[in-house]
Amino acid sequence: MTNDTHDAALTSWVESAQEADTDFPIQNLPLGIFESTDRQPRPGIAIGDQILDLVAAMELGLLGDSLATTIHECERVRSLNPLLAGGRSTLAALRNTASAMLRGNVDEGVAAEKYRGGLLVALDDAELLLPARVGDYTDFYASIYHATNVGSMFRPDSPLLPNYKWIPIGYHGRASSLVRSGTPVRRPNGQTRDDAASAPPTFGPTRRLDYELEVGAFICAGNMQGDQIAIADAESHVAGLCLLNDWSARDMQAWEYQPLGPFLAKNFATTVSPWLVTLDALAPFRRPAFVRAEGDPQPLPHLSSDDDQRRGGFDITLEVLIGTALMRTQNIAPARISIGSFASMYWTVAQLVTHHASNGCNLEAGDLLASGTVSGETKESRGCLLERTWRGTEPLTLPGGETRRFLEDGDEVIMRGWCERNGFRRIGFGECAGVVLSA
Amino acid sequence: MTNDTHDAALTSWVESAQEADTDFPIQNLPLGIFESTDRQPRPGIAIGDQILDLVAAMELGLLGDSLATTIHECERVRSLNPLLAGGRSTLAALRNTASAMLRGNVDEGVAAEKYRGGLLVALDDAELLLPARVGDYTDFYASIYHATNVGSMFRPDSPLLPNYKWIPIGYHGRASSLVRSGTPVRRPNGQTRDDAASAPPTFGPTRRLDYELEVGAFICAGNMQGDQIAIADAESHVAGLCLLNDWSARDMQAWEYQPLGPFLAKNFATTVSPWLVTLDALAPFRRPAFVRAEGDPQPLPHLSSDDDQRRGGFDITLEVLIGTALMRTQNIAPARISIGSFASMYWTVAQLVTHHASNGCNLEAGDLLASGTVSGETKESRGCLLERTWRGTEPLTLPGGETRRFLEDGDEVIMRGWCERNGFRRIGFGECAGVVLSA
Repeated sequence: MTNDTHDAALTSWVESAQEADTDFPIQNLPLGIFESTDRQPRPGIAIGDQILDLVAAMELGLLGDSLATTIHECERVRSLNPLLAGGRSTLAALRNTASAMLRGNVDEGVAAEKYRGGLLVALDDAELLLPARVGDYTDFYASIYHATNVGSMFRPDSPLLPNYKWIPIGYHGRASSLVRSGTPVRRPNGQTRDDAASAPPTFGPTRRLDYELEVGAFICAGNMQGDQIAIADAESHVAGLCLLNDWSARDMQAWEYQPLGPFLAKNFATTVSPWLVTLDALAPFRRPAFVRAEGDPQPLPHLSSDDDQRRGGFDITLEVLIGTALMRTQNIAPARISIGSFASMYWTVAQLVTHHASNGCNLEAGDLLASGTVSGETKESRGCLLERTWRGTEPLTLPGGETRRFLEDGDEVIMRGWCERNGFRRIGFGECAGVVLSA
Repeated sequence: MTNDTHDAALTSWVESAQEADTDFPIQNLPLGIFESTDRQPRPGIAIGDQILDLVAAMELGLLGDSLATTIHECERVRSLNPLLAGGRSTLAALRNTASAMLRGNVDEGVAAEKYRGGLLVALDDAELLLPARVGDYTDFYASIYHATNVGSMFRPDSPLLPNYKWIPIGYHGRASSLVRSGTPVRRPNGQTRDDAASAPPTFGPTRRLDYELEVGAFICAGNMQGDQIAIADAESHVAGLCLLNDWSARDMQAWEYQPLGPFLAKNFATTVSPWLVTLDALAPFRRPAFVRAEGDPQPLPHLSSDDDQRRGGFDITLEVLIGTALMRTQNIAPARISIGSFASMYWTVAQLVTHHASNGCNLEAGDLLASGTVSGETKESRGCLLERTWRGTEPLTLPGGETRRFLEDGDEVIMRGWCERNGFRRIGFGECAGVVLSA
């Protein structure tokens, strides 16, 4: 549901928020945790090329009492968790307050602009931290294109398993190794065994390091252990979305994943983008859920609602860029190697949430549910190198002439996401980036 | 390595610590978090039928400055995590201090006994909470008997997969649904599909609810992301052990587990016993690691050390009892349905730790690494009903005449563990218990 905070005509007294290509116009207002040389970690909102310091806003009395208490608690614990625990209504209240405070032509905005120096910190002068303390991180497998592609490589006889169209397949990931965008990622060591060999496995640096382009959903209000979350209520438990890079070591994964799933091939690092783009901000960019093929089963009743079918999808364009060490020395900009849409997912975010809690598993504020690799129908929309180079058999050629089957040391992977629609301002997610270090 | 705290001749001024069948003689000194009507959650040490209140000991000046600071911090965060973060040396210091304080015949003990009323809380008057705030919970699959048994049911053509003898197979579990012993567990709902049927899956209460008997290892000092933990150093990262019941819904598991592993079949609840029995307390009960069969591969060098081969095992006897609703109305005591030993595990605790960090995954203080179901070679030592009743084909008969294939509503599952060795006092883990509620 859109409201006056989405009005494309809104402008901010933060001039850069009006630039056409900014990810952060006043219609976005994404939440994060930042620090700078003179500010301890604290919650903020991205606006143009600046961050609105919510602690400063609190101290200046620009927030209501209830929001002020919550923001103070976020400052204390250095995460958005207390804000998330307040649920969608608290997030909406903050959005309304921040929108008014940043507008150029209303009383709240005029009052706030006077404190410009205290309220704003340039993005360039800030370090962006993980937005939430993630208690549990769950990774799904919600793209049928990704599942089919990977399945056909790992299990040529049965690429898409019989449960796929019935269950949003997922597994638990590692919360401790979630890192903020910009953190270098060391190439992991691990056991691998050549597919056909009878020789023993060996231990050493992975030779098939990959990224996975994913979208993550942060949980706000949780559910009590033993209780379910109805599909109609699922989105009231979701604060918003971010981008993720679920770094993966494909050779380790192939050797270890049976029967209990991926483990060391995935848990060495997962990069999270700095800004939580709220579901409220994404309201103009909703679209119908994936349309199942004729003959495909309909989801079981607890995973199905007309409303979710009608607007369970998100029109988020997603791209992946790679820049290599050589390209940097030659001043060649990172090159796009894929572009696709989050609208291609077989399962909706609401279905992921409802499924996750359908056995009474308790979700908690700050939990992160990732979509799994976002791959679409076309080659160009495949969200990892395993698919993009078809297990290395179709290498990509980069500007400057290098080729890539998998990631090499020094490669930087950059993920971006944005939403566009006629009649609305474009909004974006900022970058999810990381450079590969040698093992 | 044993020292004077293990001396079987030691006695305590807490009389019940001398009883032959107590789990908590002065040689044990396990750590937990408790609360009572007049004491907020705080760290304590079990001694006989009492708990030594470590906050009271701190306030009475009976701890050194450094330990006092740590205990105060544990009280503040209501978990043992700050103590665990101090590593093995801090735990050893606390053990030595508590041992002296509780002895009847040394100055420290004589001084402490005067404050008996303040220092002690009866176990019967206390609520025992989870010992640690678990950031990440990992579940392994370290019993080759369990893996072979379960594999032969789920994959008759390849019960033990080719990676099993090379990799300590594990996966990430759910931290939020870890519950303390005594918490009732609701029968989960979930999707299941009859093995042979072409009919669609259905959603409803599991019909194959099971327990899994496991031993958990609490991490103390962690490792930095990107760093490994050498096998020779692995036990310096382990504070001690506890018991776990990894409740499992077998019908849901069979339908969901491919290709990413168990998820909703496991994450609705895992029960943790209240006491962390330190590795120091377990020193007298070490034994050689599992002796691999002739022809079995030796572990790769990074997972292998002479010391671990010589003493990587633990002689912990483990039993599971069931009491049904009907048995309780007839005053029939819970009946033992299995007994085995933790010494039967194929992989050692040190190997689990080293493997987990071998890709640079960062372990953190308070993390919990569970062994997976502890099953031995004999029928009587099988650690879950799936194996114990061979997928329900060999039902167990309970005292009172009931039979069990899987758990029924009202069933209480009780797990116990203890160590015995000539020349040493018996020590135990206390109970890991939970009753099944209807869906």
